Amino acid sequence: MSLVVIGSVAFDAIETPFGKTDKIVGGAATYASLSASYFYENVKIVAVVGDDFHQEDIREFKNHGIDVEGIQVKEGQKSFFWAGKYHNDMNSRDTLATELNVLADFDPIIPESYQDCEFLLLGNLTPKIQTTTINRLKNRPKLIVLDTMNFWMDVALEDLKETIRLVDVLTINDAEARQLSGEYSLVKAANKILQMGPKYLIIKKGEHGALLFHEDQIFSAPALPLAEVFDPTGAGDTFAGGFIGYMAKVGTVNFNNMKNAVIFGSALASFCVEQFGTEKIKNLTQEEVAERVQQFVSLSSFVIEK
Amino acid sequence: MSLVVIGSVAFDAIETPFGKTDKIVGGAATYASLSASYFYENVKIVAVVGDDFHQEDIREFKNHGIDVEGIQVKEGQKSFFWAGKYHNDMNSRDTLATELNVLADFDPIIPESYQDCEFLLLGNLTPKIQTTTINRLKNRPKLIVLDTMNFWMDVALEDLKETIRLVDVLTINDAEARQLSGEYSLVKAANKILQMGPKYLIIKKGEHGALLFHEDQIFSAPALPLAEVFDPTGAGDTFAGGFIGYMAKVGTVNFNNMKNAVIFGSALASFCVEQFGTEKIKNLTQEEVAERVQQFVSLSSFVIEK
Repeated sequence: MSLVVIGSVAFDAIETPFGKTDKIVGGAATYASLSASYFYENVKIVAVVGDDFHQEDIREFKNHGIDVEGIQVKEGQKSFFWAGKYHNDMNSRDTLATELNVLADFDPIIPESYQDCEFLLLGNLTPKIQTTTINRLKNRPKLIVLDTMNFWMDVALEDLKETIRLVDVLTINDAEARQLSGEYSLVKAANKILQMGPKYLIIKKGEHGALLFHEDQIFSAPALPLAEVFDPTGAGDTFAGGFIGYMAKVGTVNFNNMKNAVIFGSALASFCVEQFGTEKIKNLTQEEVAERVQQFVSLSSFVIEK
Repeated sequence: MSLVVIGSVAFDAIETPFGKTDKIVGGAATYASLSASYFYENVKIVAVVGDDFHQEDIREFKNHGIDVEGIQVKEGQKSFFWAGKYHNDMNSRDTLATELNVLADFDPIIPESYQDCEFLLLGNLTPKIQTTTINRLKNRPKLIVLDTMNFWMDVALEDLKETIRLVDVLTINDAEARQLSGEYSLVKAANKILQMGPKYLIIKKGEHGALLFHEDQIFSAPALPLAEVFDPTGAGDTFAGGFIGYMAKVGTVNFNNMKNAVIFGSALASFCVEQFGTEKIKNLTQEEVAERVQQFVSLSSFVIEK
């Protein structure tokens, strides 16, 4: 049994008010698989890179016990590259470069050893590739989580709706929920989106936390108030990875486990933004994770006598 | 022992995408005292109105057991009047009219029977009048809560800082916390503001809930996700009233009680926005309030095995 993560494995160059990086390893599948690996030991990646991606760049995955058999290396081609600069408030950014390179004609290969996939995370990617991935698995996973973004709503809405129809959990941010549903109220937006296929919807609100919707139930998770957000890159992917990693660990899909999964995902995301790129989330201890989760408990618990 | 609320008692004319009202009774002290009255029976108002304010307009206070001895009626003058129109997203509004009238030279009178004040809510008003109110109480109340807004930071910052220095709890929204502190991070903003005098700071984030800060402790309260926000007028005042009403009921000032007070204040505020003006919060039952508070419990509770 395994947890498969598909998404980009790429190079990023990031500039924030705190500094800038050279090309560092990034990409949705990178953040998500590292995050998931803190909760579940059998994480497998599907991705594509160019021959500029070296063995030492893959080392971190191996250090975390992540299976990289599904990472195709395209000789003579370059890896996906993104460069961006965050503004002072960290809530907006300019994209300085987007070079699709190997991602332009990415055709995901699912190794035979990945066919034991029980938990599938479709990281942010072209919706058609996400759908192809589902179709290439011989057995439908127990839980499929889809992460996507407004870009695909703009350029590939019908494809995206087809993917959404096939999944169990959709994670998007509040602006995206409004765009996808045409409703301003997040309650109304959630009701519409839950009729598009997914049984669960997570609306990520950044510094305001996240909402989990399922049938007529709602769970509101806080965000950890932070003095500094050093680099927000990958926080959403890290959230999704921690979420599905926790679900794979507990194994049973129900609302209570999902509430906890939202908290564990939020905890990992709160680490992610504390340093550049994957710097923080690749070097955590289980103790640090447990302590951070307890901070979420303290932050939101109260006791009212009935 | 009593809870004294000072603030405006006024007429409002409100327009939202759902409809519009004629002049209805509004004002910070109106919303706050009605809200507080669900938790504490000895609520007393200090305010000023004109002779356009009739006995029937005061009836609602009396129905809720609120002492109106401190409401001055100025013969030959008109009550404060505000007219506003909310935009479609309900997050922004245009002020169509602001007629200060009796508020222009409001000199608060504290009746002798109010000198038993143990809990004092300084509703949104000129900071100088708020300070005067504190000074006219012979004994310093056990708990002073100050509600204010960006307008006073723009036009009377030094006066406001003087008032802030004298109180125990400050309630403002996130934009105001940033303006007052000059810090974007709410954690840094809170640290600065807690050095200005108050021991507790509540940052209201509207549909994103509220944060309570005290020393190095933080509590994050959710907002109830609502399908419709009918009229946001008075929600902040209602929150403040519910908050201090609950504190007066339990009597002991500590962080745990304040966490609950934030939840009770949020619950009352969630009712407030469901109808025009005070329509909803003047007709609640204790059962409805208890049920709403339980919705907050369900919304935010999760159990993680250590």
